[in-house]
Amino acid sequence: MYLSKFLLPTSKDVTSEAKLVSHQLMLKSGMIKQVSSGIYSWLPLGVRVLSKIESVIRAELDVIYGQEIVLPSLQPLTLWEKSGRAVEESDMKSQIFHLVDHKESKYVLPPSGEEVITDLFNNSVQSYKEMGKILYQITWKFRDEIRPRHGVMRAKEFLMKDAYSFDTSRDMALESYERVFRAYLNIFKRMDLTVVPVLAPTGAMGGNYSHEFHILSPNGESTIYYQTELLDYLKQNDFTLQNFEKFYAKEEEKHIPESYDSLNVVQSKSIEVGHLFYLGQKYSKALGCIYQANDGGNHFPEMGCYGIGISRLVAAVIESSNDSKGIIWPSAISPFDLVIINLKPDDAVCDTLAKELYTQLSSLYEVLCDDTYNSAGRKFADMDLVGITWQVIIGPKLATERKFELKNRKTSAIEVLDLAQIHEVAQHIKSYKTNSSK
Amino acid sequence: MYLSKFLLPTSKDVTSEAKLVSHQLMLKSGMIKQVSSGIYSWLPLGVRVLSKIESVIRAELDVIYGQEIVLPSLQPLTLWEKSGRAVEESDMKSQIFHLVDHKESKYVLPPSGEEVITDLFNNSVQSYKEMGKILYQITWKFRDEIRPRHGVMRAKEFLMKDAYSFDTSRDMALESYERVFRAYLNIFKRMDLTVVPVLAPTGAMGGNYSHEFHILSPNGESTIYYQTELLDYLKQNDFTLQNFEKFYAKEEEKHIPESYDSLNVVQSKSIEVGHLFYLGQKYSKALGCIYQANDGGNHFPEMGCYGIGISRLVAAVIESSNDSKGIIWPSAISPFDLVIINLKPDDAVCDTLAKELYTQLSSLYEVLCDDTYNSAGRKFADMDLVGITWQVIIGPKLATERKFELKNRKTSAIEVLDLAQIHEVAQHIKSYKTNSSK
Repeated sequence: MYLSKFLLPTSKDVTSEAKLVSHQLMLKSGMIKQVSSGIYSWLPLGVRVLSKIESVIRAELDVIYGQEIVLPSLQPLTLWEKSGRAVEESDMKSQIFHLVDHKESKYVLPPSGEEVITDLFNNSVQSYKEMGKILYQITWKFRDEIRPRHGVMRAKEFLMKDAYSFDTSRDMALESYERVFRAYLNIFKRMDLTVVPVLAPTGAMGGNYSHEFHILSPNGESTIYYQTELLDYLKQNDFTLQNFEKFYAKEEEKHIPESYDSLNVVQSKSIEVGHLFYLGQKYSKALGCIYQANDGGNHFPEMGCYGIGISRLVAAVIESSNDSKGIIWPSAISPFDLVIINLKPDDAVCDTLAKELYTQLSSLYEVLCDDTYNSAGRKFADMDLVGITWQVIIGPKLATERKFELKNRKTSAIEVLDLAQIHEVAQHIKSYKTNSSK
Repeated sequence: MYLSKFLLPTSKDVTSEAKLVSHQLMLKSGMIKQVSSGIYSWLPLGVRVLSKIESVIRAELDVIYGQEIVLPSLQPLTLWEKSGRAVEESDMKSQIFHLVDHKESKYVLPPSGEEVITDLFNNSVQSYKEMGKILYQITWKFRDEIRPRHGVMRAKEFLMKDAYSFDTSRDMALESYERVFRAYLNIFKRMDLTVVPVLAPTGAMGGNYSHEFHILSPNGESTIYYQTELLDYLKQNDFTLQNFEKFYAKEEEKHIPESYDSLNVVQSKSIEVGHLFYLGQKYSKALGCIYQANDGGNHFPEMGCYGIGISRLVAAVIESSNDSKGIIWPSAISPFDLVIINLKPDDAVCDTLAKELYTQLSSLYEVLCDDTYNSAGRKFADMDLVGITWQVIIGPKLATERKFELKNRKTSAIEVLDLAQIHEVAQHIKSYKTNSSK
């Protein structure tokens, strides 16, 4: 993609309402534009990051045989009345958008899909042989936020991956829960993010076992308490729920039991980006979802539900990975793998080299090429702002020797390479990717 | 993907409300489940087809530098009041869902995005230098259908690709229009679909030049009239709007002018799957969208808008490509590239061969492997129903010689191959794909 064709409305000034650095940087880099309070349009740079995160999530849910579905946004109120989540007493009632069609049929625009997925499962699966499935969707959800703020961090419309598991027993349900837990750890690892899963209250979702995944962030809305040893444990690849429970990790600090080995508990501000709920039979009973068991009898499935706030995660990643110049994307979700910055596109030598590099590199990677006539200063400022992992810089001096600079946005390390070494660029990026996904 | 893990609730019987063969086959093959009138959940088989179509569309819009964005579904009513599309006199008014938030702010759930994209463009682009852009999104849209019917063909919630162009003059706008026209022809060609573009009335969108893309279908809701020579012309790769206009192709037959060379005009039932509108300055003026021209003055962009109904297209493809056994997917949008049908998964020889084939083929293709203990009859019936382009059939007799059958779903042609010839399978599929995308 050539920058001259790419819609990238960067700007220096943003609304004073944008207090969080992520909100400021998303506006400055032209990732989003506000439509009205809590409602945003996503521009090409933002859409590319969303789509990268979606790919990472799909890849890891594939591993655990997650089945991708799409539930409607228009959901009959009758289903929500069955679950009780749309009635006066529910915590969720005030946050749900309601509407009617021309026949006065009532609908809600949902923040999550328990009711419809349970109904769908009931209509799709009859036998215990088909249980143990994890279904997920990646769709835009809705919430009538009392106080929308911090850009896409707390918006009325948000992109969420929500997954649901259906099992024949509590034990099997907790195995599904553990599989998703492990998938989440892998998802965040691929994005180079340090997350802390904490035991959480279950709130409006029902059920009786829940974890939240938090990204550490000085400006986060949440406060968590966890044993520092937990982070080391999570870096290993032998995660089990049972082992995890040996560590203290909660949203509260009261009454830390003596049973925890080492009480090296620290406090941190954080941003919640994912959650897991063991729901039991709350929704399957409410919606009358049954399957036929081995013994011929009808039973209610044991369910779990599992969310990752994708649009919120974009902001959370930026909160945890930026510097004074702008965003620093983890390579797995960088909007492009690399950007070629042609400092003198009207110089024939620079132009030829840029085109050769673009042709060769774009067969292997997603490449943005800055072919604009902006000043060198503006080019560097814009590309540091948008935070693409690698910059290939072409200037008139080096170009005469068919050389260019390869710069890492995060470390600022620069290497001078020549065109014959183009495979080293590839090698560099590849080794970087391989390391980061470990 | 193993069928034992895949959510594929096929069924023999479907609701008598399903009159169209596409509606029946989508229900029978477990692609969709109805949630309520005009509202559907999409299951994994359906989601895979949607996602294949999305990929084809993205690939062709990339060629013309289309910029992917995401507009919100919650759109402030104030923007729609500016365009006039939400007021009493508008054709569209009765089809729009309305809702309010807890602050009594009013929103619509839109069937298309002219208002918000025009506002976004105004906030993102200042100079004539940045004009000539085509922006598009692939999102779920809403319409309060008076009479939802035929499954996803006419639903209240539908997946649509909508694109918008912004240019500095009518001539430039028509060049963008022509580029999208050509992209549409390529998109439908890749899917092996014969489409007929016809000159269309502009209706509720405004503007004064419009084409619809129709798939020929005996049960289609539309009737079109076109010169048979047009189909030959469209097979060539030298499309221009100017040449296209030499052919008669309309939704009406009255007053065919004598100027048309050969009046070999035929009538056909058809399904509309795409449209193009030249909008002029209708929306840019209404929304106050301006850019600064070369001469320093402020001007309103000349706009166009371009839609493809993706969920509707799934049904239209099935209408045009099925037999008594089920769906026959064009290879570019087949939910899997091939399915391995292991007729005896409890037979060690069959099982070993199936696993070897799965391992090798799934490194190259998207492969479904039927590892269930269903009867051979059920397996064949289910796989013919879901219509995956290629079937690799493993039976106990041939398996002892390390042989299997490769069957084409469309032609029913069967070839016996051995494991050493696995590359021929690949070759087969590849050559088929290459031919069909020409």
